[in-house]
Formats: sequence, structure tokens, C-alpha cells
Amino acid sequence: MLKLHKSQRIAAILKILTDSPSKVFTLGHFTEMFGVAKSTISEDIDTVRDLLLKTDQGYIDTIPGASGGIRYVPVLSQAKISKLLNKLCIELSEKERILSGGFIYMLDIIYNPEKADEIGRIFASYFFNKNIDYVITVETKGILLAFSTAKLLNIPLVIVRHYSEAADGASVNINYISGTSSRLQTMILPLKALKRNSRLLFIDDFMKGGGTAKGIKELAKQFECTVEGIGVLVSTSEPSAKLVDDYISLLTLKSVEERNGIINIVPNANY
Amino acid sequence: MLKLHKSQRIAAILKILTDSPSKVFTLGHFTEMFGVAKSTISEDIDTVRDLLLKTDQGYIDTIPGASGGIRYVPVLSQAKISKLLNKLCIELSEKERILSGGFIYMLDIIYNPEKADEIGRIFASYFFNKNIDYVITVETKGILLAFSTAKLLNIPLVIVRHYSEAADGASVNINYISGTSSRLQTMILPLKALKRNSRLLFIDDFMKGGGTAKGIKELAKQFECTVEGIGVLVSTSEPSAKLVDDYISLLTLKSVEERNGIINIVPNANY
Repeated sequence: MLKLHKSQRIAAILKILTDSPSKVFTLGHFTEMFGVAKSTISEDIDTVRDLLLKTDQGYIDTIPGASGGIRYVPVLSQAKISKLLNKLCIELSEKERILSGGFIYMLDIIYNPEKADEIGRIFASYFFNKNIDYVITVETKGILLAFSTAKLLNIPLVIVRHYSEAADGASVNINYISGTSSRLQTMILPLKALKRNSRLLFIDDFMKGGGTAKGIKELAKQFECTVEGIGVLVSTSEPSAKLVDDYISLLTLKSVEERNGIINIVPNANY
Repeated sequence: MLKLHKSQRIAAILKILTDSPSKVFTLGHFTEMFGVAKSTISEDIDTVRDLLLKTDQGYIDTIPGASGGIRYVPVLSQAKISKLLNKLCIELSEKERILSGGFIYMLDIIYNPEKADEIGRIFASYFFNKNIDYVITVETKGILLAFSTAKLLNIPLVIVRHYSEAADGASVNINYISGTSSRLQTMILPLKALKRNSRLLFIDDFMKGGGTAKGIKELAKQFECTVEGIGVLVSTSEPSAKLVDDYISLLTLKSVEERNGIINIVPNANY
């Protein structure tokens, strides 16, 4: 048992709840941990709840019933999401990012722990209510965004690979055409990776034609699972007809003018 | 400015510091944010410091001087590290994990957000004082462990790939022999990915011969960088002579007896 002053107890409760987003804790968990009455813990939680609202960092949810308790829901307000997306657009418009072939360099953003966490927080805000069982992504660039999202939703991450290894065990393989590279690729997922009848959320960094997302849907079928959400950081405005239509794209890349050094990228309002 | 009661202010300071481990905040940052005197903030920080010590979650460091301030150092005690490693060994010894060829299935652990975070916290504890500039890893399995470590050290992650893409820009390629697969592989890293003269920490999930770690050292040279630390979750006891010798392995896989269903894996004391 941990004997703490009231202000330390409140800080400890905030940390425990926000360190494990979406995880349900019973009040009994805290009364035992701190050796105080339920009414005291309820008061402390109200203080934490009020702080989260004041600072726009999500909210605390109460789940009624015998298996109930409280959990931290890490959703952001639309105003905060807009602010974050506008900031990202400014960064992604820097002309030094232009690569030949109409691509833009994004690795410094999607591999940056702080930014990957922010982007994951936006995805988690959009998909929190979808009862997702697994976040799924294809190696390699979307992994950190997918991981951040999975952490906030308190569910496992599944990474589909292009090549299998001995240490993966028996696997399911499917072939698909990636729109970005316009070539035939293979998706491989170990049989042990997914429970049957699960609801999946596919997260990726970039969508052009939607071939990868379509491949994930087919792979999901092989595991008797369904893709209940698709979230990408950037999608291109062309081709406008993608191979999937039920996706959320945070930013749209409208054009990359190599000659003038102009990148036209805009945030989307997904609400 | 955010007007908060003392207990909410303390909770908010704890969250801000622990959400950005290793990042230096000036006292002025908090006096401005909350509109209170420096002496009040100092008291609040003492309360946070005391709480972190009581709960064995690292400590708060004071950096003196004009550019000084405070930062949260996310190191764990040796006792807590031992406890976490023992728990991991029990999980990794489950006989269902045995794959043919003497491998064990670890994806459910190394892709689990909560566990990847715990393992990252152990690596961060060991390498915190090494003044690392980047965490580096090779796709795919070590990525989440490397990401968690990078997040705790407040530095960027760099992911080396086996195949290049148009959206990566100009790259450096080197060939190496992976001990796990005993085949020639390629490592590719975009020229933009690392600043010259940086200190790198290589993190991976598994080490058998050490070929990948050796390859990373050679790749680092091409960028005029140095590998100042190597951390792997599991290394095999055979071959005992690895191609690198200055590495930290959290667990040692001594044997996998397919016939009897026995996995012999033990924690290492790296202190």
C-alpha cells in the first residue's frame, strides 16, 4: 500500500490512467493501492476529470456494472485536431521535402516519437468508438503511427510483412498491387497473429491508389476478420477514385510542383 | 494561462514532465503556464520528485546554468528491471512458442504496446548516460522496442530498410550477412536520415551471430557516425563468439528442446 498526500495521490491517479489509455480500472484498484475510502478516490477522480477537460486532453469515462470502473479516453477536440493538422501541413510544405517523381520526404515526421504520438492521438480520436480489436499495418513506414494508435486504444498491433522469416511460424500469404510502386507485392501474416472474428483498424502513412488497403481487406478475410476502419496520414488527390472508399485521410496532397518548389497539401475535416 | 488548484497543478506538472521524458523544461515554462511564483513551482516539483521516487518510476534531474531547468529521467531501479525480466522469461518459456529450427515466437510480446514500452524503459535505463543522438534499428521486428527507447530518450528513431523506395530519396546501401538467416542482405538508409558525427544506439529484438549489429556499425561509418551502444532483447548463447562484443542483451536463450517442449531462457544482470 502506498501512503500519499492528497495532491500526490491525484497526480498518481492521473499518471496511472493516462499511462494506460482505454484500460478500465475499478475504484477498488485505487482504494487498495492507496488505502483510502471509495468516496475519497471518487473525489480525486473528479479532480483528475476536471483537469483533463480544462487542458483538452480527453476525458474520463465511467463504465457502469459489476465489471465496470473508469478509463481514460484519449480523444482530442476538433479544435485541437485542426491545430495539429495545420501545423503538420506547414512542415510538410517545406520545399526541401520535394523528391523526384512527385513524392515528398516525410521520414523525419513519421519516425519522430513526439509527432507519431500526436498523429496516433488523432487516429484514436476518430476510431475510439469502433470497438476495434487490433490495429494492423504493413511494414515499414506506417508502423510508428499504427503503434501510437494501438497504444492509445489499448489493443495489440499487428504488422504485415513483405517477406517471411523462420521465426514467424506458419503464415498466410497474399499478392496485391501497390499503387505507390505499381508492382506486385506479397503480404505475409503469421497464422498466430490474429484471433478469428476480430475487428481491424488499418493505419498507414500514405495512400495513392488504395491497393495496399484493398490487400489488407482481402488478407483480413482469410483470417475471418473484418476491416472496420482505415486511417492514413496523407492521401493524394489523384487518382480520386481509390480502390477502397471508406477511409479517413488526415491530409490531402494535391500537387507537388518540382519546378517551382511548391507542395500543395491541405488538412481534411473528418467530422 | 491556466488557473489550477495546487493538487491539479502538481498532477499537470507530473504529466507534462513524464509525457516528454528527458526533455528539459525551465521553471519559467511552468510559472508562465500557471501564473504562479517560482517558489511555488519549486515546491510543486519537489512533491512530484518525491512521488516518482516513492513509486520507483525514475527521477527528476536539475540542470544548472542559464540554459538549465528540470527533466524527467525515466530510469528504473535494478530491482524493478529484474522483476520485469523474470516475468518476460516466464512468458517466453511457454512451450507453445516453440517453432521449428530452434526459434521461439515472440511477436505477441514485441508488438504489444505495453510490453514494448516496458522493454524500452529497460534499454533507456541502461543507455541514458551515453549521450545518444539517434536510436537506430533494422526493419521490422525491433522497431517498436527501438521506438519506445527513442521516445524515453527524447531522440529521433532511424529505421534501416532492406529495400529502397522512391519516396526515400538518395540512399546509402551496404551488404551484410545476417546470422539468423545466414544469407546476404542489404541495408539501406536515406542520406537525409542521419546528421554527420552523431552517436547511435542500435536496438534489436534478437541477436544470434551479431551480423546485423556489425552491419550497422559499418553503415554508421558511411555517415561518419559511431555506434555507442547496442541493446538486444534476446541473444542466443550459441555461438558464444559474436561479431560484436560491446552489446547488452536483456535475456539469453540457452536452448530450445523441440522434442520435450522446453525453452531455457534466462535474464542477464547488466550492471
